[in-house]
Amino acid sequence: MSTKCDSVADIRIDNDRLLQRINELGRVGALDGGGVSRLALTEEDRQGRDLVLQWMKELNLRISIDRIGNVIGVRAGREDGPPVTIGSHIDTVATGGLYDGNLGVLAGLEVIATLNDAGIETNRPVAVGFFTNEEGARFAPDMMGSGVHQGVLDLDEMLAVRGIDGTTVREDLSRIGYAGTAPVGEFRAHCYCELHVEQGPVLEEEGIEIGVVTGVQGISWTEYRITGVSNHAGTTPMRLRHDAGYVGAAIAVEARRLATEFGGHQVATVGVSEFKPNLVNVIANQALVTVDLRNTDDECLKRAEARMAEFVKQTARTEGVKVESRRLARFAPVEFDSSMIGLVEETAGKLGYSVKRLPSGAGHDAQMFAPNCPTAMIFVPSQDGISHNTREHTEPAHIQAGANVLLRIVMTQAT
Amino acid sequence: MSTKCDSVADIRIDNDRLLQRINELGRVGALDGGGVSRLALTEEDRQGRDLVLQWMKELNLRISIDRIGNVIGVRAGREDGPPVTIGSHIDTVATGGLYDGNLGVLAGLEVIATLNDAGIETNRPVAVGFFTNEEGARFAPDMMGSGVHQGVLDLDEMLAVRGIDGTTVREDLSRIGYAGTAPVGEFRAHCYCELHVEQGPVLEEEGIEIGVVTGVQGISWTEYRITGVSNHAGTTPMRLRHDAGYVGAAIAVEARRLATEFGGHQVATVGVSEFKPNLVNVIANQALVTVDLRNTDDECLKRAEARMAEFVKQTARTEGVKVESRRLARFAPVEFDSSMIGLVEETAGKLGYSVKRLPSGAGHDAQMFAPNCPTAMIFVPSQDGISHNTREHTEPAHIQAGANVLLRIVMTQAT
Repeated sequence: MSTKCDSVADIRIDNDRLLQRINELGRVGALDGGGVSRLALTEEDRQGRDLVLQWMKELNLRISIDRIGNVIGVRAGREDGPPVTIGSHIDTVATGGLYDGNLGVLAGLEVIATLNDAGIETNRPVAVGFFTNEEGARFAPDMMGSGVHQGVLDLDEMLAVRGIDGTTVREDLSRIGYAGTAPVGEFRAHCYCELHVEQGPVLEEEGIEIGVVTGVQGISWTEYRITGVSNHAGTTPMRLRHDAGYVGAAIAVEARRLATEFGGHQVATVGVSEFKPNLVNVIANQALVTVDLRNTDDECLKRAEARMAEFVKQTARTEGVKVESRRLARFAPVEFDSSMIGLVEETAGKLGYSVKRLPSGAGHDAQMFAPNCPTAMIFVPSQDGISHNTREHTEPAHIQAGANVLLRIVMTQAT
Repeated sequence: MSTKCDSVADIRIDNDRLLQRINELGRVGALDGGGVSRLALTEEDRQGRDLVLQWMKELNLRISIDRIGNVIGVRAGREDGPPVTIGSHIDTVATGGLYDGNLGVLAGLEVIATLNDAGIETNRPVAVGFFTNEEGARFAPDMMGSGVHQGVLDLDEMLAVRGIDGTTVREDLSRIGYAGTAPVGEFRAHCYCELHVEQGPVLEEEGIEIGVVTGVQGISWTEYRITGVSNHAGTTPMRLRHDAGYVGAAIAVEARRLATEFGGHQVATVGVSEFKPNLVNVIANQALVTVDLRNTDDECLKRAEARMAEFVKQTARTEGVKVESRRLARFAPVEFDSSMIGLVEETAGKLGYSVKRLPSGAGHDAQMFAPNCPTAMIFVPSQDGISHNTREHTEPAHIQAGANVLLRIVMTQAT
């Protein structure tokens, strides 16, 4: 389907080639029993990067690597100027799937390959990029590469971030050979488009093929480091305890209560919990928990943050423990460009796909571009709504639909 | 004060010598900044055992090491027969102090040294022992050595217990050279007496020098292993979550609520909490928590256990997670022998010390002896009630008082 056609309007991506690339990249850092682990800036990430870089070279893209390790390949147009940009990421969580991020990057390469095969020259350049550490699973905050790329995050501050393995972003970029020299914060796109799996259950539940993303939820990550007094679990009366573990657990239960009470688009997650000394019969003198709050409405998100902060303050006072809180990430909700939203909806409709407008519950690299250029996202369904999980899956037909919508949008914007 | 006296009634222990031994043993496994870590059957435990064994030899005790690694040294009496037995333990928690357990063993040696120096021959033999893995911090259950020694716990079952480092009791006993050959479950004592720090705040708060222990709280340890579904923290609606971490946290908060509601002698502690994958933006698919419940009243303890079990069942059902529960330890409350309680009280009074009867909130090796022979415990104050903590401290004058009471009781029982 991808070679020269009678009419440009009939051009379609080659889904077999796209799936092959998805599966090949999925073998880098593959986990026994399925799924992948390519945490940002690890050896596995390096191998994944090397593979995608090689594909970019094979597609004759002009490649640059910037100072935070973002990799951009550009296909020249008849004119110079800001490229129509496709992007996403190839890092994963520790127990990730094959599609989250990877689909957007590899569908971008498939768009390039399709244009190449059809011998189509565009007016504007077309760029495909993958951005460093979108997941934030090893270094906080998430969307680090695209944030620096678009001038939202500070380069030096991000290079100094120390991750869960004790190393810094700067050290690990050098170690894996992706400390590039291209400047950051200056790249401007004509427009930005990202194809991504929904990572939620909405499209599948309603039998929709293409999600038209209206914006991205605001994200607030806070780490609480609680210091109490370790003491004997049998002899210490309840009234005399300063139990760091209890306060950590109470924070997690309060986060759930808050999300349930707020309702709507409010979600709250405590994904990290560590006690010290972590023994059955010793009251914990240290606990570490993180709270992940998200909402499409910034006012609601601020109320949620304020309520958590107040709860932590009160509970710490009552229990007699010390709490240090540290903001790991804070991104305001983003609304995508209305003409780009319209374009995605119209394009999908013309190709015969069912569509639905919805907000994204996850953060995406696209939100970093949104303040600087017209930005859009295309969602395809996630089976059982599962993501950040080795069982993450999207049907081939849905991948094909999403990539074809992406192709048409790029052709419309670049031609 | 410890050499020959005009009257046997004037004999006193040598507190300097006792404190010297406590400090010397405290240097084995010493932590930077104070306290010790001699987890059961580790290299540090081996070194501590070697040191105490050497002291036992220097005191001319007849030493035996049994199949679970308990070490007993016996000073012969004029007659054979069950010895008057002094005992405790020298293993510690990971962040332990110098007195918990160690005081009882080393005060026992000081009693022997005092009898030796004074040339006192007793009718009955006098034994001093230290029992394997009283703390249960590395292998559950706690009071393992004394439990096997007194026929309460099964030898083969305990040898097969796998600890937090993945090794078994059997393997580690061999590794550190303390897999002895003396039989277990047959030793009978004429009576058993254990001197211990209170590990709670009661004696200090009331300005009492000697605590007369009436019994030991019942102990119930349960481990909950929760399996949910890991998923994206942003895109998964609250109603569709199967969050293992939330259930773990809810168990900890319920344990606190239960203890507060029950009041009296009920305590509840969640000291262990581990999430997987333990990442900010991933709903945990696994959580491990432990619940430590204690009460002096077995009926109350059973009610507490039933309530926790019901809460876990309900919460697991509502959240749609699987919970495997495993009992790590269960000991019914113990009441000590009334004539022994009277003897401790009377002896302390005669020596001019203030006394108070109180139950023990912690489990002790003494409770394993209680069903088989008249048993008593002597408590001395813990500064600020702190124990299982590197800051654990007991004043020299209180140590001296406790050891002298122990000496008089042993002389009364053995002579």
